[in-house]
Amino acid sequence: MGGYAVWLDLLGVAVFALTGALVASRQQMDLIGFGLMASVTGVGGGTLRDLLLERSVFWVDDPRYILVCLTVALLVYFVAPAIQRRYVVVLWADAVGISTYAVMGAHLALKAGAAAPVALVMGVMTATFGGLLRDVICNEKPLILKSEVYASAAAIGALVHILLVELGTSVTIAAMLGFLMAFAIRAGGIVYGLSLPGFKPRPPRPGSG
Amino acid sequence: MGGYAVWLDLLGVAVFALTGALVASRQQMDLIGFGLMASVTGVGGGTLRDLLLERSVFWVDDPRYILVCLTVALLVYFVAPAIQRRYVVVLWADAVGISTYAVMGAHLALKAGAAAPVALVMGVMTATFGGLLRDVICNEKPLILKSEVYASAAAIGALVHILLVELGTSVTIAAMLGFLMAFAIRAGGIVYGLSLPGFKPRPPRPGSG
Amino acid sequence: MGGYAVWLDLLGVAVFALTGALVASRQQMDLIGFGLMASVTGVGGGTLRDLLLERSVFWVDDPRYILVCLTVALLVYFVAPAIQRRYVVVLWADAVGISTYAVMGAHLALKAGAAAPVALVMGVMTATFGGLLRDVICNEKPLILKSEVYASAAAIGALVHILLVELGTSVTIAAMLGFLMAFAIRAGGIVYGLSLPGFKPRPPRPGSG
Repeated sequence: MGGYAVWLDLLGVAVFALTGALVASRQQMDLIGFGLMASVTGVGGGTLRDLLLERSVFWVDDPRYILVCLTVALLVYFVAPAIQRRYVVVLWADAVGISTYAVMGAHLALKAGAAAPVALVMGVMTATFGGLLRDVICNEKPLILKSEVYASAAAIGALVHILLVELGTSVTIAAMLGFLMAFAIRAGGIVYGLSLPGFKPRPPRPGSG
Repeated sequence: MGGYAVWLDLLGVAVFALTGALVASRQQMDLIGFGLMASVTGVGGGTLRDLLLERSVFWVDDPRYILVCLTVALLVYFVAPAIQRRYVVVLWADAVGISTYAVMGAHLALKAGAAAPVALVMGVMTATFGGLLRDVICNEKPLILKSEVYASAAAIGALVHILLVELGTSVTIAAMLGFLMAFAIRAGGIVYGLSLPGFKPRPPRPGSG
Repeated sequence: MGGYAVWLDLLGVAVFALTGALVASRQQMDLIGFGLMASVTGVGGGTLRDLLLERSVFWVDDPRYILVCLTVALLVYFVAPAIQRRYVVVLWADAVGISTYAVMGAHLALKAGAAAPVALVMGVMTATFGGLLRDVICNEKPLILKSEVYASAAAIGALVHILLVELGTSVTIAAMLGFLMAFAIRAGGIVYGLSLPGFKPRPPRPGSG
């Protein structure tokens, strides 16, 4: 993936930072709260990934990532009042973010020698972790609990990437197709309320737990 | 502990994965949500342990752990509707899980050269961390806040293990007795509502914080 | 910073442990719950810092930190009933804690070669992480969401430290002034409700998200 990887990483960080700053605005935080939420959400998933894979944590050595987060926070602080429907922006930016990170997480896990199922789970975990931190810190209901496809979009995107790489496709093309697949599915979830069949419990009987 | 260690680890992962998948069913997640919750809960405590001890994260190099989590998730997805009282299964599987992880956490900390009090805290932290992640992600009240013994069962199990090892008992026997002690205490908590004396605040006075 | 560093670290651990134990008392936990909450809150921020900087986790090799946490927990368990306004003690001890950790986090990040913006974010993250864990585990509203300055106090303290070090001030003096600045600002927040200008949303229009 080479030079692409850094740009894909920066894109993922930027869109997650955007969602973090927008959630900070919903909580009426001050400017530094915006910076913190943008940073935590922006680098959260990648930090988990790097810790699990025993890599150096990507944003500690390269200040560009944090500078992107802080710049996004500053912009949002002054521009957000002009945005009509902030939650919709959060949803779509988050969709780009999970699609990017799902592919990056799976890619880096494979590169570190992990087996396919491990790479798959790593893709989903790193895709969903930053947003989960954001929602837990800000007392919002985690997006992962909403009924539309969310973790599943990340999982299918990671799976497409892994399968294509195993079939010999170039990593760049596999990453692009994995990203598009994840994003298309999540977009379907946002627009049409698309969902996989959820678990349907029987109606509880009196006295059962 | 040798070969036992892997089996004990797999058992702990499997029962925690079971609780994660069952909580996913309470949240009416889809199949991939089941897989994610089973994986996060299954490997959460051990991941924290390995990061703290600077070990390679156990499930990254050995795909068996993730495969166990995903298999459990798949089974629960199809079998759970037939389970009458899912929450009771969560409680008991979680009890096996914290007993296993308390001993494993303490054992590995001692093996890494940590002092007894550090090994004790490590046992309790790794025993409770997976379930805590599960409950935080799914917006459930953490089991650790319930009034019956929970962290205390893990702590006493870890303590028994540490003391027996210091007294020269074989690691296998110390692990077995530590596990049984933790499980017996937690079982007493579930069955009889057994609890250690909790902190009893005085009745608040008017105007006090 | 030399020998000072260990004492500053122990101070930060002790005051955060105190807040953890006091929150455990609000949850009417048992003695071991006190020990766990004191330990998690006490070492949480420093653990994140060490993982991010690829250092050995400080409390794993040196049992003094955990012994401080457990001692604080024991004291609080027996003394807390005599404390009239426990929440006020939590606020002030937490204020000392974030001021200490903000400076320590920034200092150690700089020492590890991180750029100034990275050191700044690291200071804020490590200052706020222990308290965040405490509040999430105990279902309390995170202090970081309160309207008075909180993350901002940590950020400004870290910034003062970083700027003074870059200007050639000795690390000890920079640490002391950074600590005092953070503490003074947070104290102003507690006493006078001081806050930075928060994000002011327009009144929502009907139908907007």
